[in-house]
Formats: sequence, C-alpha cells, structure tokens
Amino acid sequence: MATKLNIVGEEAITAGGVHAAARRLAGKTVRTPLLENQRLNDLAGGRVLLKCEALQRGGSFKLRGAYNLLSRLPEEVRARGVVAWSSGNHAQGVAIAARAFDCPAVIVMPADAPAIKSEMVRAHGAEIVRYDRYTEDREAIGKALCEERGMSLAPSFDHPDIIEGQGTVALEAVEQAGEMGARADQFVICCGGGGLTAGCATILEEIAPKSDIFIAEPEGFDEAQASLKAGMRLTADVTQKTICDAIATPSLGLLTFPIMQRRVTGGACVTEEDVKQAVAFAFKHLKIVTEPGGAAALAAVLSKKIPTSGKTTVVTLSGGNIDPALFSSILLEIENKA
Amino acid sequence: MATKLNIVGEEAITAGGVHAAARRLAGKTVRTPLLENQRLNDLAGGRVLLKCEALQRGGSFKLRGAYNLLSRLPEEVRARGVVAWSSGNHAQGVAIAARAFDCPAVIVMPADAPAIKSEMVRAHGAEIVRYDRYTEDREAIGKALCEERGMSLAPSFDHPDIIEGQGTVALEAVEQAGEMGARADQFVICCGGGGLTAGCATILEEIAPKSDIFIAEPEGFDEAQASLKAGMRLTADVTQKTICDAIATPSLGLLTFPIMQRRVTGGACVTEEDVKQAVAFAFKHLKIVTEPGGAAALAAVLSKKIPTSGKTTVVTLSGGNIDPALFSSILLEIENKA
Repeated sequence: MATKLNIVGEEAITAGGVHAAARRLAGKTVRTPLLENQRLNDLAGGRVLLKCEALQRGGSFKLRGAYNLLSRLPEEVRARGVVAWSSGNHAQGVAIAARAFDCPAVIVMPADAPAIKSEMVRAHGAEIVRYDRYTEDREAIGKALCEERGMSLAPSFDHPDIIEGQGTVALEAVEQAGEMGARADQFVICCGGGGLTAGCATILEEIAPKSDIFIAEPEGFDEAQASLKAGMRLTADVTQKTICDAIATPSLGLLTFPIMQRRVTGGACVTEEDVKQAVAFAFKHLKIVTEPGGAAALAAVLSKKIPTSGKTTVVTLSGGNIDPALFSSILLEIENKA
Repeated sequence: MATKLNIVGEEAITAGGVHAAARRLAGKTVRTPLLENQRLNDLAGGRVLLKCEALQRGGSFKLRGAYNLLSRLPEEVRARGVVAWSSGNHAQGVAIAARAFDCPAVIVMPADAPAIKSEMVRAHGAEIVRYDRYTEDREAIGKALCEERGMSLAPSFDHPDIIEGQGTVALEAVEQAGEMGARADQFVICCGGGGLTAGCATILEEIAPKSDIFIAEPEGFDEAQASLKAGMRLTADVTQKTICDAIATPSLGLLTFPIMQRRVTGGACVTEEDVKQAVAFAFKHLKIVTEPGGAAALAAVLSKKIPTSGKTTVVTLSGGNIDPALFSSILLEIENKA
C-alpha cells in the first residue's frame, strides 16, 4: 500500500470540495427525492429515508462525480475527450457529462454488461469498446486508448473530483432530512470501489459528525469490509458471477480506503436472495425500479443485517439500470415464494 | 341530468377549498416529486414534467381526496366508519386515511381486482367485501353496508371534499414547476370518473388560468371525452375487459362533469398498446413503476395523441399498483418488439 500516495490524495478530498461540487452540479443533476414509506418504517422499527438515485439522470448517482470531474478539466484537455471503464453506470454518467461539455467519450465495458446499460451509453452519444471481464484487463485497455487518442481518463471512483461529486448525495440527503424534520443517525451505502461511501463520509464529517456509516456489499464481493477489518486493501475475485454488477469491484481505491478506514462504522454482506427481496420490495411498496447493486443497502436493512430499531437511517437506492428480463424474473421468483 | 344538483355541487367546489385541503394534507400525504427526463423531452419536442403520484402513500393520488373527506366528517360520524367501492386505489386511500383517524373502513372491491390492491387494502387494516364486476351493483352493496352498519359513504370521486383533495396534485405541480423555472402550458390527466381532473381544473383556474387541460382515457372507456362532446353524461360498458382498471369508470359524476365541461380543452383515447409502451418507458427511462391506468396520460404524450411540441406539459403518473405478473408480461412483450 502506497501510504504517501494515500495521504496526499486524502488531503485533497474535503467537505469544501463537496460543497463546491454541489454548486457545479446545480441544474445539471437532479436533486433526487428522499422517500419515506410507512411499511418500511414499520419493518425497520425506525425511520428509513431512501435517497433515490435511481431517479438521477443516467439512472444512478454516477453523473455527480463524472460531471464534477469533467467540469474541472482544462477546456483544451476536455475537448480531446475522456475514456472510462465501467459496467455501465459510471459509463452513462461519463457519457451524459461528455455530451453536456460537447466532448467525445469512449467507454470500456464488459461484454456481459446489462444490455440496457450499453444501449443507454450509446444513446448518450458515447463510443463503446468491449472487453472480456473474465480474461482481459480493462485498465490496460483504457490506458492504451488514452495514449492512442490523447484522451483523459475518467476513473470510476478513485479520484478526488469523483469522490467529492458523489458526496453531494449525502449533502442533499441531510438537507432533505432536515426539511422533513428528521436527523439521520446512520447511513447505509451501497459499496463497490467506495467512491460514493468516501464522498458521503467526507461531507458527513462536517454536517452530521455524529452519524454512523455502514456499507452494504454482495456476498463474494465484500472485500471492502474485509479490507477495513484487515487494515489493508484486499481484492475480490471479479471472475465470480453476481447480479450486483454495479458494485462487483475488485477492491477499494488508494484514496477511498483511508477515508473509509477513519469513518466507516461497519457493514453488511447481503446474499443474492436478500437483494432480490429488496428489488421486489422497492417494486411493490416504493414503486421504484432498482437494480440489484443499487438495492444492496435496502437489502441490508430489510434482512436486518444492519440494526435500524429506534433510529433514523438514510439508505441509498443508488441505481436502477436493470434489464427487463432480469427484473421480471426477480419479481416472479419472489412473488412465487410469498 | 339533474341541473340543479350540478349547480349546487359545483358552487361548493372552489380553489379556496383546494388550498384548505392542502393545509389538511400537510404531513399526511407526500409532496410527490415532479420529474423531468431528457429522453422524454426530446421525444416530446418540449418540456414534460411528470407529477409522480405512484410515489404517493398507497401508490396513487387517492389518499389526497380520501384524507380530506375523512378529516371533514364530524368526529362521532367518522368514528362509526366509512364504506367505499373501488377497484383498489381509492380503496387504499380510504384504508390509509381511516387508519390515520382510527376508524373502521369497509371496501367493496371487484373479485377481479389486481391482487396487489386487495393485499394492500387488507394490510392497511380495512375489511374487504367482494362483488362480481360483471353482474353485481357495487353501489347497491355499498349503500346497504352503510345502512346496516351506520357507516358513511366515501365516494370515489363525486364529492366536493374528494375533488378538492385531488386538486392538490395540480397545486403542488404548479409550485414545483415554478421552483424548476418552468410554467406549464398544459396538463394531461389520467381520467376515470373525473375527480382528479375536476380538482386540478378547479385550482388551475386560479393559479394557471391560461393553461389547457387534456384528459387521457383508455379505448372503450373514453366516455368522458364523448360526454364532453355530446354535452351530456354518457356511460361506458364496464363489462369490457381492460388493463386500465384504475380508470375503467362507467361515467363522469354529477359534480365532475360540469367542471370539466367548462375547463377541459380536449383529450386522447389511448390503446392498450400505447399504455404498455408507456409502462415500459417509465420502467426503462424513469425508473418508476406505473400501472396501466396511471400511465394513460404518459401514453397520450408518447403516442403523440396530444401535441407537446414547443410546450411545457405537466403529465400525471397517477398510480403504480400493478401485479408483478402483469408488469413482467408488459416489459417482456415490449422488449421483444423493440
């Protein structure tokens, strides 16, 4: 672990940076609703407030970081374009941001990414380069593209501008909770590489310093919790199959890890069954379309893996890009069990 | 048509009544988000703002009218309970409102109502009495129950308190549009018995008097448009099958009809195919679960049956209570056609 790098990077990530990102994003991203549901409150034995990033432009929170990053690139650099690798949500965020700045975007996407994600990336005007998730190295492909075309890399999580952009999720949620007369005791955040978690942790230290932060990860990809326990960054086996493609990340980042070490209280590892139950719950009771990776935090609450009794809990519903076939099969499977 | 009754009723329905309802509903109903989507704006050639009542408590706008009505009943009358007939959305609204006031509720529901709707009504603590939609008279059953049990009737649309409660949808939408820097040129409203339309028309006359109001109805149940053209209330054949159960109403009401006569500009008749396309669009691009009847207004816009070019259009997404099996079959059918 490159300790020096960590410290340098970490110092660059501040609550002030999240506030600045919020100013840049005003009018470009949606102030997504913070939803509350009586059935969910009853089940949780407390108040649960759902920060509904599935309703963000691009169907996930990812536009926040991507737009913030692109807005900070020098104009002549940005004009040459950006390259990103992503299973699809960051891809859409980058594609939408690039179109807003009228610059080209190339996305390195796994061949088995959900069809809806590739279709949307193309619809936003970006170019897609495919790779095999099980045998090829997306970072090498992306970096080669940057060199060949003189483009800049738009990392999916481990960059100060990305992290600070994602932190606006918590900034908005705390403001919205206040408008609802609530104060969040804890946050449960869907965690892949930790961009969203680290960004939220950064701003929460300023605006809700007493709140706890929990992460939710899918079984087999719970390397973030393992890393926090071990005190070093561990790596998940990304060749495993999972329905939670959005958060099936190999490891935390050099920048996200130390922030999370300082501020994350704990976490939950959710099963595919937990996640399917959460997707079906969001369909039936919330009327929100969530993708499995975006429902992991809700799954952690519904499965009681994170205690919510007597507390006010903010839960991220971080994305909603799911193919109709998978969504239907989850609904019917859970319905048949009921 | 009882002209005198109309005039008496109509006079009792005012913009002031909608404002009063909004005060009663504060903190009891959700100020549902007004969503905007770039893809939809591009397709419409204008700005489309979606008033998302699928996210209301009970999954549709119906709690607004029901809570307003119950809040105005004398306490000793309310304590004896209320009876309603409904395919399921008004039923849930009445059940939730009755629970809030701690009084009993009995709902007369068709035997073929969507399972999700009956399940939710029971979950909110109401009693269900079933009838056969094709052979029995729900009004007679409901009125008999009122007499037997000393309960009050909570009509599903043709009552001043119900109409004024539903009008808060447009009151909020106009406020929210203003917050987004928009001014609505026109409203497209899903129409069954006209409670939502008449309520919105009543408040819009005060706060957006130049806006046009269009209604959306399903094929075979477009008796509202036919009635407005004919200048008299006509009746639809309610024994027809439709996926738009929420708005498969036999006719406009004595109170809703004259308000709509004065203020509705026109309408669109949407096919089942139009509605399925709208449900699939809301899934894919908006990440909102809509039921067919709740997606009729969106269907009218997407099918270009109501012109939107160069205009700002507020569209009601009025409900989201749909069984998983129907939702899945719609998604897969539309996906296979794409």
